[in-house]
Amino acid sequence: MSLEARYKRFLSYRADARKFTPFWHVTVPDFVKPHPKPIDLGAGMPNEGLFPVESVHLNVLDHPFEHQDYGFRSPRLHRDHDSRPPKETSDAGKPAPHNERDLVSQKFSDGSMVDIWRYEPAGSSSIPIQSGFQYNQTRGLTPLVDFCRDFISSVHPPAYDEWDLTFANGSSDSLFKVFETLSDHSTTVLVEEFTFPPTLSNISSTGATAIPIKGNSSSDPEVQGIDTEYLANLLDNWSESEHAHLPKPRLLYTIPTGQNPTGMTLSLAKRKEIYALAEKHDFLIVEDDPYGYLRFPFYDSQNPRFNPYEHGGYTIEQYRSEVLAKSFITLDTSGRVIRCETFSKVFFPGLRLSFIVANKYFISKLVEFEEVSTRAPSGVSQAVVHNVIQKWAHSFDSAVEAWLSWVMKVAGQYTHRRNVLFEALQATPAFQKGLFTLVPVSAGMFAFLQLNLDKIPNLDKPEEAMRVLGYKFMEEGVQAVQGVNMAVCKKFSFHRSQFLRVTYAYAANDEELQEASKRLSSGLERLVEAYAK
Amino acid sequence: MSLEARYKRFLSYRADARKFTPFWHVTVPDFVKPHPKPIDLGAGMPNEGLFPVESVHLNVLDHPFEHQDYGFRSPRLHRDHDSRPPKETSDAGKPAPHNERDLVSQKFSDGSMVDIWRYEPAGSSSIPIQSGFQYNQTRGLTPLVDFCRDFISSVHPPAYDEWDLTFANGSSDSLFKVFETLSDHSTTVLVEEFTFPPTLSNISSTGATAIPIKGNSSSDPEVQGIDTEYLANLLDNWSESEHAHLPKPRLLYTIPTGQNPTGMTLSLAKRKEIYALAEKHDFLIVEDDPYGYLRFPFYDSQNPRFNPYEHGGYTIEQYRSEVLAKSFITLDTSGRVIRCETFSKVFFPGLRLSFIVANKYFISKLVEFEEVSTRAPSGVSQAVVHNVIQKWAHSFDSAVEAWLSWVMKVAGQYTHRRNVLFEALQATPAFQKGLFTLVPVSAGMFAFLQLNLDKIPNLDKPEEAMRVLGYKFMEEGVQAVQGVNMAVCKKFSFHRSQFLRVTYAYAANDEELQEASKRLSSGLERLVEAYAK
Repeated sequence: MSLEARYKRFLSYRADARKFTPFWHVTVPDFVKPHPKPIDLGAGMPNEGLFPVESVHLNVLDHPFEHQDYGFRSPRLHRDHDSRPPKETSDAGKPAPHNERDLVSQKFSDGSMVDIWRYEPAGSSSIPIQSGFQYNQTRGLTPLVDFCRDFISSVHPPAYDEWDLTFANGSSDSLFKVFETLSDHSTTVLVEEFTFPPTLSNISSTGATAIPIKGNSSSDPEVQGIDTEYLANLLDNWSESEHAHLPKPRLLYTIPTGQNPTGMTLSLAKRKEIYALAEKHDFLIVEDDPYGYLRFPFYDSQNPRFNPYEHGGYTIEQYRSEVLAKSFITLDTSGRVIRCETFSKVFFPGLRLSFIVANKYFISKLVEFEEVSTRAPSGVSQAVVHNVIQKWAHSFDSAVEAWLSWVMKVAGQYTHRRNVLFEALQATPAFQKGLFTLVPVSAGMFAFLQLNLDKIPNLDKPEEAMRVLGYKFMEEGVQAVQGVNMAVCKKFSFHRSQFLRVTYAYAANDEELQEASKRLSSGLERLVEAYAK
Repeated sequence: MSLEARYKRFLSYRADARKFTPFWHVTVPDFVKPHPKPIDLGAGMPNEGLFPVESVHLNVLDHPFEHQDYGFRSPRLHRDHDSRPPKETSDAGKPAPHNERDLVSQKFSDGSMVDIWRYEPAGSSSIPIQSGFQYNQTRGLTPLVDFCRDFISSVHPPAYDEWDLTFANGSSDSLFKVFETLSDHSTTVLVEEFTFPPTLSNISSTGATAIPIKGNSSSDPEVQGIDTEYLANLLDNWSESEHAHLPKPRLLYTIPTGQNPTGMTLSLAKRKEIYALAEKHDFLIVEDDPYGYLRFPFYDSQNPRFNPYEHGGYTIEQYRSEVLAKSFITLDTSGRVIRCETFSKVFFPGLRLSFIVANKYFISKLVEFEEVSTRAPSGVSQAVVHNVIQKWAHSFDSAVEAWLSWVMKVAGQYTHRRNVLFEALQATPAFQKGLFTLVPVSAGMFAFLQLNLDKIPNLDKPEEAMRVLGYKFMEEGVQAVQGVNMAVCKKFSFHRSQFLRVTYAYAANDEELQEASKRLSSGLERLVEAYAK
């Protein structure tokens, strides 16, 4: 059965009806002998000589926070350019740079900047301005698309052959396009009971209905995440359930690794169970994986600063084959998984660059939609990512390895931050008093602080208490997200809603994480006081 | 009457129904005293120290094709790095750069590169990586949004106060969002009878119907473009017309300056007529203006290389107030014009950066849609544009002037290219024989070659002849767009469809334009031969 025959019924009516007539297409009869070097007066593209930028030079780091090692402080590179005295460093023979301009001059002289030139010679692996900054293929610039294909083949190889990928403008845009293509008013979408609210807007905008799936926050990695027994039961008994009036689900949306907001990661066993349910009940799995590469062991209070990314604890191969959670797409024999990846968390968010991996039929439909909406993502963003990775590749056996090496450095930083936060939180009075518990996390940027409101005397209305807690946090000077605000259905999730989502991604340094922990604790203690009266 | 009261009825049913619940929003009671410096553990944003790029340095030109003046040739900067010997140049005291690396080193040393640093001191006009490359406001980075507001206020000031703007990801994306917001199956959209086909896909995707408006290709600037008499008649007699079964039009979509594909520019008198019709019949005007800044006088065969942009023929003030065609929005007293601008043609297409100017109510609805779709455009693209303009601003009275100065240089290049092409075409045998006429253009990147097929003996089927012409062009080695392929309704536009859209934007140099002209002529002469039998 062809992909189209199998999956056409999953298209939204808008995607199915979409017609796009390219105005270039001409069928050429055999008797026409085309000129080998035609001059194009057809395409309305400005010549690259008209672009005001002739070349771009990127000052790229060897590892995150490398600037902290510099022997100088600069207001343009350092947040704390006043407060810390520079350390003396020197590099054999070369005078240490005194400021950021020196540094960049030196890096430019020694060829360690990453360049984007107007042109590149044939055979070069870099993207030039001529193509990168020009009108370009909607699905993405070929060299970077090829890299991402290689990357997926190596790291999350789909369990079938007829897959493909397309770029989009960041995770939100990927999901917007996926739901625009695969859901409408006749679609029921299963979602984790707590999830990222803008995705719910994407779903509801198409007319589809989102139904929450019960999940577990647990210290047992085999229990964390979607409750598969609940899910199987719901699907087996759909027509007797409270949702019988809705069509049986055609999509399941999950953030299976470092889930937002719970921080939970689905075990491999659970992924297999969910995939088996998808096969049995014929639904698609939309796997949203922005955090998967930020992978680490559970926090160990006996060894609070243990970080396997330091001192070569993981090889690239170990990271690739053992550390990373297995994507649903590696279990996908039927082509029913749509995997969404992004460069936001491992490169930077301002690129607005993501990609979607799925079967060729779905990808062709996504590209059709892109052709009449956003078209190609920023060529500047693509050229930056591609040329940086290709530069790094000189020091590795492949570009994929080079990219994994950087990603591991970022993961190492997240591991450290997670450790610092957990250590600081566990030292607080509020933790000692059992006002909150830390659910272990093995991926991502979020910690799940389970609030034990039942420990607080006189507290009978949890919703009101969470509001009061919010005010206390405002006064103490710390911001956290209340889990209840990320529930798909507050009523459904009421008993599991008293938690905070806390991130360790953004703080400037360890001290901020430690200070924030104290403020969280103070806020909770003041909540107790508020109810003590 | 408020904007909402007046314009709510124009929203598509999808835009009207859209709900977006921000999960941050909290109303804070007065008794809460917020901490002055809260630590944010809420927002899932990676710290800028985790980004692999610490600074970006742009080699920016003083004028287009500046590289042709360099005293060296390089495969990374020059397309013709082999064929032309370098000219000797020297700059008092400084050794001339030998290659591209020298050039960039020198520019970096003398501070003429444009920089994007990780941080910028307070009060700096540059966008730093810290904000530019981070998650950011959907409508665009504030410094660049502010610049665009200043720019519009100066160059195309709306004739009312309650206007605003938002960025999007290029013209196609702007139009996608505008039609998504303002049209559905209950909407009739009037469009120029020849237009850019992807926009027709945007319109039809929403369920709306596009109805063509007859236009004139004329050498009289007062007659060029939309036939306003036809339009008035159509609207006045809608219920007796062939379109009586359709709702009366709510939108009119126009590319009024350097129209694609016809190259026509609407006179100010026509713009006023069309605006008056919009007021009378209560429709909105979607003004798509990617080419407006590429403005020049009609070609003068008596003075074929006349270029007012050379030798200071136009001051910036003249260009701003006299040369530029008046945007519909400068006539807009009611807030019914949606003006779409883009950086694609005057900066470069790969930015994927555009902006939409409209009344605040419509802009808020557009931003609502952006929030649940593409979110912000590339921060890299925005930081590049902004910091380049701010750098140039040092040499001018304002950033707006600096930007206009660059734009004029690009317009000057297009003027030259238009001149070269027209001169070459008019020298061809096909032109001499009257096989085609050149309709004068005063803006944009397209020339309108009216084909005089009636001059060709034995040619009775124009459609077949155009196909044959296409094959001849393929063999001669020249590509042009056949106007018929850009008709909204081939039947409606049949008698006005025998033209070619030819662009002078992309050719590498004058010689390519001249050679292409010869090939066009040969193709046409071979068409005559084909019918001579």
